[in-house]
Amino acid sequence: MTLDDLPTPCLVLDRPVLLRNIAAMAETAARHGVPLRPHLKTAKSIEVARLALAGQPGGITVSTLAEAEYFLGCGLTDILYAVAITPQKLDLAAALNGAGADIMVVTDDADMAGMIAAHPVALRTLIEIDTGEGRSGVDPEDRRLLEIAAMLGARRAGVMTHAGHSYAASGVEAIRAIAEAERAGVVRAAERLRQAGHPAPVVSLGSSPTLRHAASLAGVSEVRAGVYMFGDLFQAQLGTHGIDDIAVTVLASVIGSDRVGGRLVLDAGALALSKDRSTAGAPKDYGYGLVLDLQGRRSLGDAVIGRAYQEHGVVTPDPAWKLPALAVGTRLRIAPNHCCLTAAAHDRYHVTDGGEEVVAIWTRLNGW
Amino acid sequence: MTLDDLPTPCLVLDRPVLLRNIAAMAETAARHGVPLRPHLKTAKSIEVARLALAGQPGGITVSTLAEAEYFLGCGLTDILYAVAITPQKLDLAAALNGAGADIMVVTDDADMAGMIAAHPVALRTLIEIDTGEGRSGVDPEDRRLLEIAAMLGARRAGVMTHAGHSYAASGVEAIRAIAEAERAGVVRAAERLRQAGHPAPVVSLGSSPTLRHAASLAGVSEVRAGVYMFGDLFQAQLGTHGIDDIAVTVLASVIGSDRVGGRLVLDAGALALSKDRSTAGAPKDYGYGLVLDLQGRRSLGDAVIGRAYQEHGVVTPDPAWKLPALAVGTRLRIAPNHCCLTAAAHDRYHVTDGGEEVVAIWTRLNGW
Repeated sequence: MTLDDLPTPCLVLDRPVLLRNIAAMAETAARHGVPLRPHLKTAKSIEVARLALAGQPGGITVSTLAEAEYFLGCGLTDILYAVAITPQKLDLAAALNGAGADIMVVTDDADMAGMIAAHPVALRTLIEIDTGEGRSGVDPEDRRLLEIAAMLGARRAGVMTHAGHSYAASGVEAIRAIAEAERAGVVRAAERLRQAGHPAPVVSLGSSPTLRHAASLAGVSEVRAGVYMFGDLFQAQLGTHGIDDIAVTVLASVIGSDRVGGRLVLDAGALALSKDRSTAGAPKDYGYGLVLDLQGRRSLGDAVIGRAYQEHGVVTPDPAWKLPALAVGTRLRIAPNHCCLTAAAHDRYHVTDGGEEVVAIWTRLNGW
Repeated sequence: MTLDDLPTPCLVLDRPVLLRNIAAMAETAARHGVPLRPHLKTAKSIEVARLALAGQPGGITVSTLAEAEYFLGCGLTDILYAVAITPQKLDLAAALNGAGADIMVVTDDADMAGMIAAHPVALRTLIEIDTGEGRSGVDPEDRRLLEIAAMLGARRAGVMTHAGHSYAASGVEAIRAIAEAERAGVVRAAERLRQAGHPAPVVSLGSSPTLRHAASLAGVSEVRAGVYMFGDLFQAQLGTHGIDDIAVTVLASVIGSDRVGGRLVLDAGALALSKDRSTAGAPKDYGYGLVLDLQGRRSLGDAVIGRAYQEHGVVTPDPAWKLPALAVGTRLRIAPNHCCLTAAAHDRYHVTDGGEEVVAIWTRLNGW
């Protein structure tokens, strides 16, 4: 089977690029002497997980309990559920532990910490620290940090943070500064816990950009990242990877082609690509994605999906390139703005070894 | 089972509101004496389809062949696949006909029309007409209209158009003008075909806004719409329906609550809500969605999801309302900017009769 045999739109995963991205992050973690706990919220696939876990201790990060359940079913047991837990979700997390998992949950709330501590099933728990993103977590100096730890009692396991604002940084130096604030903040929180008599063995941080550019990870016990596996147009502009390191693309077909007027419409729209417009604020705005040819080359210049309807994607040609006269049915590929959201619209990866042959199909989990 | 028992995030469908929206559109179609061919790209659910088909001839519209296959499996046979077809998709459409469907396909391309005509299985075909949207279709006066009809030969069935630019109109008068251009354009295209000896029995048009406000549908044989069933924050601002006519919401839980600082974080983020920002250009910008209480009331004022991460939604409070101190685990509901995209992230509807009891679960189809 080749890419020409697939129904469109669908997802293509270039395995050599994936392996290269995985190797680069593993090398970064190894250079710092810190183990990697891959975040599987992007890939949501056991095959990708196994590749990302090569040479690592085996712990994973997930963003939903559905992911936790799926990966547990695949034999992965050391699972950090990195989104703050609610009272209603405690029983499910505990049930997964009963089924063989060793789940770590996360909270930044003292009342929630009390409920975790009171639950009959012991759940390792990380206190979420805000190291500048301003989304969730407590400040390392906040008095609530010790209140939460006190509520957790014996169930406490440590601290975690995510410097997600690194995605909004301009330039490598800015990312490096955020990486250091992420490290210093979470290490400081762990120190405060230890001063108060809590061991805090787990000190977990990470985002793909900060790991890529961190100068030091001193005091950190593990790092987390996920987007680096696939890459995307937004990350490429952050300097996290090159534009040729995007492993996942959407295969699409031309459904309308006005070869006189230059109009080109594809069957990949807002559902197949997502409406993520993260590159709108980046140096180069790629609309809803960059149009590549079937081989994944940039032979159409900087043609982008300029308008995205539910199932229609309208191409805006590169002003400097003449769009070739493409027949209806011609296949193209679209590099995504944000791989996490684009991949989430699809239930499988069509894996290639860089060519047009489909060498494997890997399913992925969606939903909650 | 009540809304409090559901894992979050998930989709809630208020059946009385759905029925009211369906009745209003049926009444509009009846007033014009034109049958409605409901577009099921929004709902993608047989239960919703059956409600929308009440009193109608039974024909449906779909946006993917996966939908066509699903609804055929549910016994619906008269199916308009309203996205332009490709050579590769012809065999699947033909196979559905072999399995009992009577599919109408769409094209705006003469070469594609030739391939449809040459296919061993006869497929009814509509020529797509551009009545101002500038997305796909040929202009009613374009010479290609007759070229395509000539290529189709005996398989031609008529013309269709979609005035999707009605969604960008400001005010009811502007929508009314677009509705008339939509009607006049597609009727003119049918007239040209008839003058050239093609019967063109099917003259199909529609979008939820233009149907809602059309002054005349003279010369039209059927109308199509889908978004009207659910409604959303964007449509409510177009004047297509009221803000209380939004039938679908996302149930979410508070996962972070700084009761001193006023920060509120929910477990409904970019995946559960979509990154559709259509209200960014509307009179009222609702961020990634309007926050309602568990009962669906606006007791938090105009609090919106101001920031959407993959699984986190951060609430921006209404400046004029004090956000109540909500505990972690508190349940809220989010009205969506764009119901088609929000619903597509979920695989089922939790149906209520307006209260908190879940009276049914309806699955929905996703993917391609």
